[in-house]
Amino acid sequence: MEKYTLSVLVENNPGVLSRVVGLFSRRGFNIHSLSVGTTQDPHVSRITIEVIGDASTVEQVSKQLSKIMEVIKLKTLRDSEIVKRGLALVKIKVSPKTRGEVIEITTVFRANIVDISSNTLTVEITGHDRKIGAFIDMVEPYGIEEIACTGMTALERGTNTLRLDK
Amino acid sequence: MEKYTLSVLVENNPGVLSRVVGLFSRRGFNIHSLSVGTTQDPHVSRITIEVIGDASTVEQVSKQLSKIMEVIKLKTLRDSEIVKRGLALVKIKVSPKTRGEVIEITTVFRANIVDISSNTLTVEITGHDRKIGAFIDMVEPYGIEEIACTGMTALERGTNTLRLDK
Repeated sequence: MEKYTLSVLVENNPGVLSRVVGLFSRRGFNIHSLSVGTTQDPHVSRITIEVIGDASTVEQVSKQLSKIMEVIKLKTLRDSEIVKRGLALVKIKVSPKTRGEVIEITTVFRANIVDISSNTLTVEITGHDRKIGAFIDMVEPYGIEEIACTGMTALERGTNTLRLDK
Repeated sequence: MEKYTLSVLVENNPGVLSRVVGLFSRRGFNIHSLSVGTTQDPHVSRITIEVIGDASTVEQVSKQLSKIMEVIKLKTLRDSEIVKRGLALVKIKVSPKTRGEVIEITTVFRANIVDISSNTLTVEITGHDRKIGAFIDMVEPYGIEEIACTGMTALERGTNTLRLDK
């Protein structure tokens, strides 16, 4: 069982996300993370899906996906060929005494403080799952109030693209 | 028509995302952006959905959502009460002559360069839609090869949370 990243360009209309996600759930595939966002073309959205499975089932799902009418183009991406990033917001409990320590950890991870109150600090951190996980492990002892993550999104390295006109 | 942000805590299992997204598509609601990610509890995922609509339809949808068995808790968040962030990867065409200019723009936006090739530069930028949009407008004249965005994710400011134990 490996983690696969599927990048799917779709027409931007209400039903399409539901059809794509429905396909995964009917197959009993648990989506590890999902991102939907606009592209340079307002009529086209890009869905990035991380799934855990074996090569043959991922291939099957990607064949099924390409049969959905609104799917314009799709590609299974290997981790070694891509830049993959996600974002997490982490709200950490702090006291006047511990605030400095949490700020130090935040600086080491090149994360940003985006909100502060007398008892909490909210930090924005970007990167791979592993980097985000390492940050969370470091601040866990102070007490985590809440975490909100985006899914991962990805682009191929160098000049390779999934553009419509190629 | 306004933009609303729904934050939904759900049980982490294959079918639930499909049921949540299906509800929006059956109502003809176009999801502006969507993020699914883990929380501090491995059994619970947080889905953040941005929708454009009027107050009464958003209220209806949120009522319907709360009837889905796997939905644990949900809240409609106002922009003034939250920290909202997303991430975009933007691959820009560059030549040895224009590379410096693109790097300058990247620095002003506090964005990060995450990949470089002889003809391209890939930049990671985080923030609101507006900030990401302003960056894209600035680099558009150089030629954009590809864009990949995560959905937006959000946390309430200060000590308010959508925690399970409250």
